[in-house]
Amino acid sequence: MVSADRELQDLMQAIGHAARAAASALAVIPPQQKDAGLLAAAKALRASAPAILAANALDLEEAEARGTAGSFLDRLRLDATRLEAIAQAVEEIAGLPDPVGRVLAHWSQPNGLMFERVATPLGVIGVIFESRPNVTADAGALCLKSGNASILRTGSESFRSASAIAEAMRAGLQQAGLPADAIQLVPSKDRAAVGMMLEGLGQSIDVIVPRGGRSLVERVQAEARVPVFAHLEGLCHIYIDRAADLAMSKAIVRNAKLRRTGVCGAAETLLIDRGCLASHARPLVEMLLGEGCEVRGDPAIAALDPRIVPAQEQDWHTEYLDAIISVGVVDGLDGALGHIARYSSHHTDAIVTDDQAAAERFLREVDSAIVLHNASTQFADGGEFGFGAEIGIATGRMHARGPVGVEQLTSFNYRVRGTGQIRP
Amino acid sequence: MVSADRELQDLMQAIGHAARAAASALAVIPPQQKDAGLLAAAKALRASAPAILAANALDLEEAEARGTAGSFLDRLRLDATRLEAIAQAVEEIAGLPDPVGRVLAHWSQPNGLMFERVATPLGVIGVIFESRPNVTADAGALCLKSGNASILRTGSESFRSASAIAEAMRAGLQQAGLPADAIQLVPSKDRAAVGMMLEGLGQSIDVIVPRGGRSLVERVQAEARVPVFAHLEGLCHIYIDRAADLAMSKAIVRNAKLRRTGVCGAAETLLIDRGCLASHARPLVEMLLGEGCEVRGDPAIAALDPRIVPAQEQDWHTEYLDAIISVGVVDGLDGALGHIARYSSHHTDAIVTDDQAAAERFLREVDSAIVLHNASTQFADGGEFGFGAEIGIATGRMHARGPVGVEQLTSFNYRVRGTGQIRP
Repeated sequence: MVSADRELQDLMQAIGHAARAAASALAVIPPQQKDAGLLAAAKALRASAPAILAANALDLEEAEARGTAGSFLDRLRLDATRLEAIAQAVEEIAGLPDPVGRVLAHWSQPNGLMFERVATPLGVIGVIFESRPNVTADAGALCLKSGNASILRTGSESFRSASAIAEAMRAGLQQAGLPADAIQLVPSKDRAAVGMMLEGLGQSIDVIVPRGGRSLVERVQAEARVPVFAHLEGLCHIYIDRAADLAMSKAIVRNAKLRRTGVCGAAETLLIDRGCLASHARPLVEMLLGEGCEVRGDPAIAALDPRIVPAQEQDWHTEYLDAIISVGVVDGLDGALGHIARYSSHHTDAIVTDDQAAAERFLREVDSAIVLHNASTQFADGGEFGFGAEIGIATGRMHARGPVGVEQLTSFNYRVRGTGQIRP
Repeated sequence: MVSADRELQDLMQAIGHAARAAASALAVIPPQQKDAGLLAAAKALRASAPAILAANALDLEEAEARGTAGSFLDRLRLDATRLEAIAQAVEEIAGLPDPVGRVLAHWSQPNGLMFERVATPLGVIGVIFESRPNVTADAGALCLKSGNASILRTGSESFRSASAIAEAMRAGLQQAGLPADAIQLVPSKDRAAVGMMLEGLGQSIDVIVPRGGRSLVERVQAEARVPVFAHLEGLCHIYIDRAADLAMSKAIVRNAKLRRTGVCGAAETLLIDRGCLASHARPLVEMLLGEGCEVRGDPAIAALDPRIVPAQEQDWHTEYLDAIISVGVVDGLDGALGHIARYSSHHTDAIVTDDQAAAERFLREVDSAIVLHNASTQFADGGEFGFGAEIGIATGRMHARGPVGVEQLTSFNYRVRGTGQIRP
């Protein structure tokens, strides 16, 4: 065991050093060359389709033999169409504006010094994900576009698929004259490798991005010694204000809860202003019940319909990720702000109202990554924001927050131009 | 011991909770009220001058009795002039533009959704500092201006002075209707309190800022489980390119090394292009020797003058913070970039040259928080950048980098305004 541990440690250290070296090279590579590398990677993905699909077939076979659930198998499964979508996503990332080298601010001082704040890569990004083969390509490409090297760790069930995808992409990068080690997949299923990544591989990893379910994110947040871009949950609220249009409220609540129930931007709690309880509560609840959504209500709501389940305290804390919603009555905007401050996961919360002052106060005072007025919480997505693609959504306040696109995978430095200035 | 530990833990937890509550209140307080609080704090500092100076006298007496070094005593000492400067600094911070609520970006999407990215406070900032009484006022005011609550931990030698300053400021805040707990000084000299802060006080601290010498920063960086804004050292380089003006080179090198030798932006290594060795090296080295600076040179430099000490490998790694400089010859810009990549602490590095292309490449490729062309490294300072004041200089790449002023003590969120949009 000791020698196996030692071997893994050496392997991971070598990966860390190679990533750091690749990151140094990437930092000064012209944008065109990064884009050429991504286009070559997409081409290589298409050319390697037979190998990737064969690797995926073996992954699927093994997962099926273990009796894995159907929804899991569906996420694991690749076919020609899905692989083409993966290649196209890489091309789309190549087509995004370059996030590195952007002049974020510029000013001068009375002594003539000219200051620029310029976007630079972050360095090395560790991505830990579950068995979705597309993440290998997606995360590797987003990191590369932002000038970062990536160390990717896949769930073991998609190990062969992810390896084949990574190999194809690395070959593409190399053809375009980029370091292949700009994208590395951890070539071991040993869970200890994750622990080493969370320790930062001896300062070789600058940030960790977990992509997966709650238990993965929980472990990463608890154990990581390097910064983490993540959200543990999306316990999103919609507050229906007394000045809300009823038709708009129904459309937004239906969409926010039911468009897709398994996404982090799905609404989990509906708060209704006591000031419109009589007019709005029953139509909203009946719409939800009619759509097959379970409703768990506080006493005032539960009194509306026998199909409503009485809500327990735990319900206000629960991200259902299912066709279930908690519904409560609050005393106006203050009541809503209080409830959200107490229960929100600081991900995404929305108000529906025609009262501009109430809307502005909600937007200003709710401490969440994304706050919306008169729009569905399901817009919590980098693509919908116009970021092109996202590596995830963060609820922390440090560095990245909300959808994390290529711009937020950058840092910055100051470049100061003088004419011989010395400090008095 | 167990009960004392438990008592401290309860105390620190209470401080953490109070800070979090104050931060929530601060986040929605109008900017005018924050400024009024800072002005009232400055007034209270002046009004409390007798109490603060008396506390300081006791601190000084105790430090002198222990035989503390004179330079340390000087940093610890307050008098009427210094206290007035502290009050004025707080007023200047009040006068800065409000960093919270700035619209950092705004755009709309084809579906009509309007997006804003708006600066918000970070939350709770833990500041751990050595025995400089002014930091209590300075750090507390910078955090407050950026809407953050602060938990301040002073070095034990200035405990009475810092306590008196904190009490005055808290009284000022309270008079202006702000929560006094927006600024808290840890009321214990127990070193275990620092360890608890580094653990984040149960998610009550969002970021730690150490202010002090290398050993403090080293401990904080090694032990902190929350993000840290800091620099371990400022091993700053000046590269004299073959196209450098000699008179400008001499002025910049003199200023960068000798204006103040103890600051983090002081130059520690001078690199001279082999292409101007014959013309530039001797005048530069003679200027330094003439100014009383010890020169440690590589063989080519050491051959110039018998007073030059041969440089050892360790010298290129050393932040002297003294009138000592390492001088080496490099093969042009590539040689300089290679040396800096290997030895720089990623703090501040400068090039002197009239060759614009060389300057631009240096500015682009040196991976340091601050990179300068034809200017002294001693401009590495938030005041010189026009930030008004800084809480420190960071060399990490996450969130803050370079001088950390009030703007970098903020986070942001997204505010999205719609007219009933739902996601297809």
